[in-house]
Amino acid sequence: MGEEFFTEVTGPIPFGGLESRDPLAFKVWQPDRVVLGRPMVDHLRPGVCFWHSFSWAGVDMFGNGTMDRPWLVPGGDEMAQARQRMAAAFEFFTKLGTPYYCFHDRDVAPEGDSFATFRSNLDALVDDALGYQERTGVRLLWGTANLFTHPRYQAGAATNPDPAVFAYAAAQVTHMLEVTQRLGGENYVLWGGREGYDTLLNTDLRREGEQLARFLHLVVEHKHKIGFEGQLLIEPKPMEPTKHQYDYDVQTVYGFLLKHGLEGEYRTNIEANHATLAGHSFHHEVAFAAANGMLGSIDANRGDPQNGWDTDQFPNSVEDLALPMYEILRAGGIAPGGFNFDAKLRRQSTHRTDLFYAHIGGLDTIARALLVAADLVERDDLGARKDRRYAGWDADLGKAILDGHESLESLEAKVAAGEVDPRPVSGGQEALENLVNQRVWSVR
Amino acid sequence: MGEEFFTEVTGPIPFGGLESRDPLAFKVWQPDRVVLGRPMVDHLRPGVCFWHSFSWAGVDMFGNGTMDRPWLVPGGDEMAQARQRMAAAFEFFTKLGTPYYCFHDRDVAPEGDSFATFRSNLDALVDDALGYQERTGVRLLWGTANLFTHPRYQAGAATNPDPAVFAYAAAQVTHMLEVTQRLGGENYVLWGGREGYDTLLNTDLRREGEQLARFLHLVVEHKHKIGFEGQLLIEPKPMEPTKHQYDYDVQTVYGFLLKHGLEGEYRTNIEANHATLAGHSFHHEVAFAAANGMLGSIDANRGDPQNGWDTDQFPNSVEDLALPMYEILRAGGIAPGGFNFDAKLRRQSTHRTDLFYAHIGGLDTIARALLVAADLVERDDLGARKDRRYAGWDADLGKAILDGHESLESLEAKVAAGEVDPRPVSGGQEALENLVNQRVWSVR
Amino acid sequence: MGEEFFTEVTGPIPFGGLESRDPLAFKVWQPDRVVLGRPMVDHLRPGVCFWHSFSWAGVDMFGNGTMDRPWLVPGGDEMAQARQRMAAAFEFFTKLGTPYYCFHDRDVAPEGDSFATFRSNLDALVDDALGYQERTGVRLLWGTANLFTHPRYQAGAATNPDPAVFAYAAAQVTHMLEVTQRLGGENYVLWGGREGYDTLLNTDLRREGEQLARFLHLVVEHKHKIGFEGQLLIEPKPMEPTKHQYDYDVQTVYGFLLKHGLEGEYRTNIEANHATLAGHSFHHEVAFAAANGMLGSIDANRGDPQNGWDTDQFPNSVEDLALPMYEILRAGGIAPGGFNFDAKLRRQSTHRTDLFYAHIGGLDTIARALLVAADLVERDDLGARKDRRYAGWDADLGKAILDGHESLESLEAKVAAGEVDPRPVSGGQEALENLVNQRVWSVR
Amino acid sequence: MGEEFFTEVTGPIPFGGLESRDPLAFKVWQPDRVVLGRPMVDHLRPGVCFWHSFSWAGVDMFGNGTMDRPWLVPGGDEMAQARQRMAAAFEFFTKLGTPYYCFHDRDVAPEGDSFATFRSNLDALVDDALGYQERTGVRLLWGTANLFTHPRYQAGAATNPDPAVFAYAAAQVTHMLEVTQRLGGENYVLWGGREGYDTLLNTDLRREGEQLARFLHLVVEHKHKIGFEGQLLIEPKPMEPTKHQYDYDVQTVYGFLLKHGLEGEYRTNIEANHATLAGHSFHHEVAFAAANGMLGSIDANRGDPQNGWDTDQFPNSVEDLALPMYEILRAGGIAPGGFNFDAKLRRQSTHRTDLFYAHIGGLDTIARALLVAADLVERDDLGARKDRRYAGWDADLGKAILDGHESLESLEAKVAAGEVDPRPVSGGQEALENLVNQRVWSVR
Repeated sequence: MGEEFFTEVTGPIPFGGLESRDPLAFKVWQPDRVVLGRPMVDHLRPGVCFWHSFSWAGVDMFGNGTMDRPWLVPGGDEMAQARQRMAAAFEFFTKLGTPYYCFHDRDVAPEGDSFATFRSNLDALVDDALGYQERTGVRLLWGTANLFTHPRYQAGAATNPDPAVFAYAAAQVTHMLEVTQRLGGENYVLWGGREGYDTLLNTDLRREGEQLARFLHLVVEHKHKIGFEGQLLIEPKPMEPTKHQYDYDVQTVYGFLLKHGLEGEYRTNIEANHATLAGHSFHHEVAFAAANGMLGSIDANRGDPQNGWDTDQFPNSVEDLALPMYEILRAGGIAPGGFNFDAKLRRQSTHRTDLFYAHIGGLDTIARALLVAADLVERDDLGARKDRRYAGWDADLGKAILDGHESLESLEAKVAAGEVDPRPVSGGQEALENLVNQRVWSVR
Repeated sequence: MGEEFFTEVTGPIPFGGLESRDPLAFKVWQPDRVVLGRPMVDHLRPGVCFWHSFSWAGVDMFGNGTMDRPWLVPGGDEMAQARQRMAAAFEFFTKLGTPYYCFHDRDVAPEGDSFATFRSNLDALVDDALGYQERTGVRLLWGTANLFTHPRYQAGAATNPDPAVFAYAAAQVTHMLEVTQRLGGENYVLWGGREGYDTLLNTDLRREGEQLARFLHLVVEHKHKIGFEGQLLIEPKPMEPTKHQYDYDVQTVYGFLLKHGLEGEYRTNIEANHATLAGHSFHHEVAFAAANGMLGSIDANRGDPQNGWDTDQFPNSVEDLALPMYEILRAGGIAPGGFNFDAKLRRQSTHRTDLFYAHIGGLDTIARALLVAADLVERDDLGARKDRRYAGWDADLGKAILDGHESLESLEAKVAAGEVDPRPVSGGQEALENLVNQRVWSVR
Repeated sequence: MGEEFFTEVTGPIPFGGLESRDPLAFKVWQPDRVVLGRPMVDHLRPGVCFWHSFSWAGVDMFGNGTMDRPWLVPGGDEMAQARQRMAAAFEFFTKLGTPYYCFHDRDVAPEGDSFATFRSNLDALVDDALGYQERTGVRLLWGTANLFTHPRYQAGAATNPDPAVFAYAAAQVTHMLEVTQRLGGENYVLWGGREGYDTLLNTDLRREGEQLARFLHLVVEHKHKIGFEGQLLIEPKPMEPTKHQYDYDVQTVYGFLLKHGLEGEYRTNIEANHATLAGHSFHHEVAFAAANGMLGSIDANRGDPQNGWDTDQFPNSVEDLALPMYEILRAGGIAPGGFNFDAKLRRQSTHRTDLFYAHIGGLDTIARALLVAADLVERDDLGARKDRRYAGWDADLGKAILDGHESLESLEAKVAAGEVDPRPVSGGQEALENLVNQRVWSVR
Repeated sequence: MGEEFFTEVTGPIPFGGLESRDPLAFKVWQPDRVVLGRPMVDHLRPGVCFWHSFSWAGVDMFGNGTMDRPWLVPGGDEMAQARQRMAAAFEFFTKLGTPYYCFHDRDVAPEGDSFATFRSNLDALVDDALGYQERTGVRLLWGTANLFTHPRYQAGAATNPDPAVFAYAAAQVTHMLEVTQRLGGENYVLWGGREGYDTLLNTDLRREGEQLARFLHLVVEHKHKIGFEGQLLIEPKPMEPTKHQYDYDVQTVYGFLLKHGLEGEYRTNIEANHATLAGHSFHHEVAFAAANGMLGSIDANRGDPQNGWDTDQFPNSVEDLALPMYEILRAGGIAPGGFNFDAKLRRQSTHRTDLFYAHIGGLDTIARALLVAADLVERDDLGARKDRRYAGWDADLGKAILDGHESLESLEAKVAAGEVDPRPVSGGQEALENLVNQRVWSVR
């Protein structure tokens, strides 16, 4: 297979169990373990992302790259480095043993000096990727186009005040959608990199909304034209890099789709850290999406509760993930989406092996969250209690209201006559929290 | 007129101008001053709220009432106190010289021991209010029902798990809508007091959404039935008292209305402090509403940038208000809405006269923001620059894209051929900010 | 024992274990279970607080009390209600089986019409409390004075602009310190209720700092005079009810004590929710306190990550508590402090039995956090790795620097000569997080 | 003078006054205008920072450089570029007409392949700078060393687990302190770039505190040894790039200095955006510093109220700056510190001329804030009211308390006897806010 990059890890990472002392063994993640009748891997469909793990050297706003990534050392032949990067990535996927990966066009292909060059760079690397996919069995969870790094996108892509930028973005998406199709990708994601504003003083919200809607319609048309059968996804984020991003949260995206006749064409790729930056719990975003047919895929990561930017840390909280996972199971699962680790190492985690530790921890965490959630689904205490709480809405008065047999006046008459005088009942929140915690603590 | 409550103020508050040393004189607010062809008062339509100013004694979560409000002293005859409260309120409105007020049903009428009693309490006090309105010329900007203070509403009103609570809320709204009509109210507001959740563990988002939509439809039906010609408004708020309120922000409310076929029936009553709690600037909320036909009325106040709860302080920042005011002017004005001071005194501002200082400062602030905004509209530098920035969208390529004459493929072809290669232009944010600041500093 | 209030619970709450389906059984908490050589109860020293659990009826800023608390119904004889409240409290303590409680003077005694009356009310109730303590074995973890509810404290107590308020506060603290001593209290806490400011416009920071320091000195003097042997504690909080509280966080309190020669006299009572409101993790506050000799006691609760006020929820996250607990164990334990549940039911949890569910969940959570922390201490992987990471500071260069044998110049000379050229090593954060998670998941 | 970089601006920027329509004229800033007896420039002592304005190309975490900065184009001779950069900077300083600048060692000098090379690069460029200073009259407000960009500093400088990194940092500071002295710098600033932690799991707070204290002592010793007469400053910041920075805010820095016997040796360089990230108003930080002898210098910028990272925008709010400026005037002024514009253009402001617009706006803003503050000082309404509010502390009871003539017991006796029974007085916040606003609106 050529040069080996992760020489400290022979791979594939074995299952060691909860008491294993081997840091390079899984404690919980067992892809074939059957949970609620299906293998764990079919529930979670985990993927590794290319950008943070292979195209980022540890640069931050205050410092240079720290990480040992030979394929990112400045200077040298860009295509040769791109091939090295892809080799390293597939070596990693294989040793880790995850079934999926995700990438932006720019993650794998050098920009070159024109779009035509870029396109041919990308095509050449996609040829390589196809070969790797065949040899390793690793599949593409989703593809996407990077519409934010190049200075031409400084004021957005589809929402740019210059239609030429819209056109450029369209060119990238056209090609990347086809690349995704060629690689058998199961979803295509649009993240609104710089679709938003830095200041309202130079921004026309109405115009930019129309532009964005037009773009989304064009993507739908092209998808159908080329026969791409994957799912289209929009990834909400409230801010950063712009002051305000248009795809603020799931409910904002949903309203936008409704306004522009796009409902049914797009679902959401929900990221935990974006949820919390928007002022919501991740649980909220997933539950809202599930309740409104918007659940598409998950970008698994976490933020820092004390830091107000996208820290993109690896998920490590079963407590935070168990209930979103429960919503996903109750909604019928995440497929054709999956759990993409849109997470990056801390900048001080400079060893190549740290990339394994981080993904092992992430996989164990989502696996354990799945076990807890499945246990909660099987016991069904939560669902049963909820049904009891709303029972009145399935009885006479509730049905009459919902079916349109009551008016404000008819209801007022009942209340004025003293026929209706509700007594509050306990919401029982602490008892419910105990119920969940008991499962978090005890599943095996 | 009976007992006088604000004896330190003879009223009406005079205009003193920017250099006046009289704390009980307006520095900027001159209702009849003509701005952009209309009297200032017709632009701003300011109102005083009943709840914070007359029905709150300075209680907070850590302390008892501090304020000198004889009509709120515990014990005593409730209807007599209610009459005293209303007398004090109209004395205040008149001495202050504002044209509007707003109230919840519970602000003026004692609860009593049944809905029937409450309704007759309210009717009696509305009779009084009508008399005051006639004698003083003060008008009702909007009415609303309090669906959150009584324990029956602990789990929400329309979104309560118990349909009997929905019915009770319906009764209150039915009557209060009629009361608002009777008093000539120009708007009716629904604030989702406890429409939201404390925990998702006991909450069915889908059900509660359906319930809320049903309620809003019933209100529309009743409005049409009784011929109420005022505007219906929903007031967004993201959290507090619940962990998560359903009417999170303007864009969430907008999506909800679209989903349930309610667009066109409701607009939003936008509160500055609710905007910032939702992670938006007030400017954003107003601009989004203006761009989407959702601009209804304003709850003028401000939050504390360091405190994460609804501090409801009196507006005192022209810098914060000038640009939202500019959006309002560009959108054709706020009528039939207005600027309601949904603001409360700091708990240490215990003198009755503090209520005057606070409203004088608030009126001066919105008046000066209006002067700045009108100046910006007249000069039109901002608008002209914005038009230039988006000029490409009114030219060939932009029009072709928006009119559907381009597809992803046709755009890719142009880019690949090198016909389209956009060069970024400066967004000029700092220069624009200077332009605004110059007007903030110099208008007279 | 007179009237029984918690009739649904026969008590004492039994241990049921992790798989018990009894919501009124402990899943983890076993006071006598030996952990690191000591009974669990001696590590945790848990207490129930009087204010949230017995003196609060579910009032919030938007609504009236919801809870079934006969001793808080308005009207009626205040002393009789106070006695009922204390009876209910001790019934609860006993049935729950916790060893400690905490209270403010005002929690148990009616205000009356003068300080003299209040003092005698309090004395009478303390007589009762002594009797209960003897009969039940429940002990006082700490006492404190309420210096924030009465309007006289609207502008602070010790930091009030009026020295008469300082004097009044001094009177309350004098007596409550003596009451705490009489009841065998092991600590005395000062929470700076309204010691802070609403606006700097009327605040003299220097003066108020001097006043506060004087107050703290007086308390130390009185403590020594009466021979109170308990620990004095200050409880940091950054904001609420004031805009800015002086005792912002542990490091601010520490600096204040140093400035005023009070170090060694006070430690801190650290509350989880106050830590997060101050922008810190609870872990940070505990670790900082441990590293600076400021670890006194814990107010165990949690905030809501999406809400910016003090939600005071019952602790339910082992993930959040395991590492602070680890710091506590490494620092030699929390005694003479303890874990006081400064937590309140959600307003919808209106049944009296909810009070049991909430405390059972809280106790199980801190008990499980203790098991995890003890396991981490025993394995000592974290400590050993930390020692290795800093090993250079125990070797020649490090020692020379710390011992004062190097100057800036001597170090520059070494670097300029190329003798010192450090190579970064991985911080290994993800691997360390995995290590902790493994214990969180697997302890039994 | 060689190549000209800012060809669109002939300079020096003239004063145009509040009604000028020239975007390249000052509206308020007039260095020689006398305010409170001194020229404006002597009050404000404004400086331009090198890093954001000349060493940053518009890179952010999601995108490449956007700005037209020929001296930052990758590739080419580094020393030639450094000379070009310095020429551009002094051209800018001169055309703008500000008296001061600030820089880090790395802003002007290329790193090279060893410390010795770096030092000689720096020395050569400092020779150039000396020449520019002489020719232009521009002076150095402060110098500082960059201890955060190079990977060796990934885990901090003085607080690094490796003493060799401490030594390397010492070498840089030694030399940069001498460079600052040679250039006549009036202050030397230590910003704790990465002094903090990413995770407590690998961090020993006690050790790192000792290391930092040692470093600060060494700097003091070297300052005295070389006879540097400038002021030493520490710049607080709460987070970013690390999760938690040690120099969290002014009060934390103050406590640290007290603990380690460093008080009197260091003051603080207070940045507005760092204040707000720490949960404080900028006003708070300045007022606390003024009250505790910690006021050193100002980094003038602002954050975005909706974004939780350091946006470093140019100051443009007179409302936000007037009161901090008032504290500074009351404290005797900011000298030998000044107002350094630690602010960067928005990434879309790509024209070189934008750098002028931004600084013009910033200078006009601080100039207007000075006019407002001076007006408030002259009228002295705020000060007089504050004195009245605290008058009791200058009378008998207050003095007796502060002078130690009262004990808790003696005070309790007075209260119990009914001699002391304070009545709350209004804090008058809104009236005070009106007073300030009136001056904000009306000064000329």
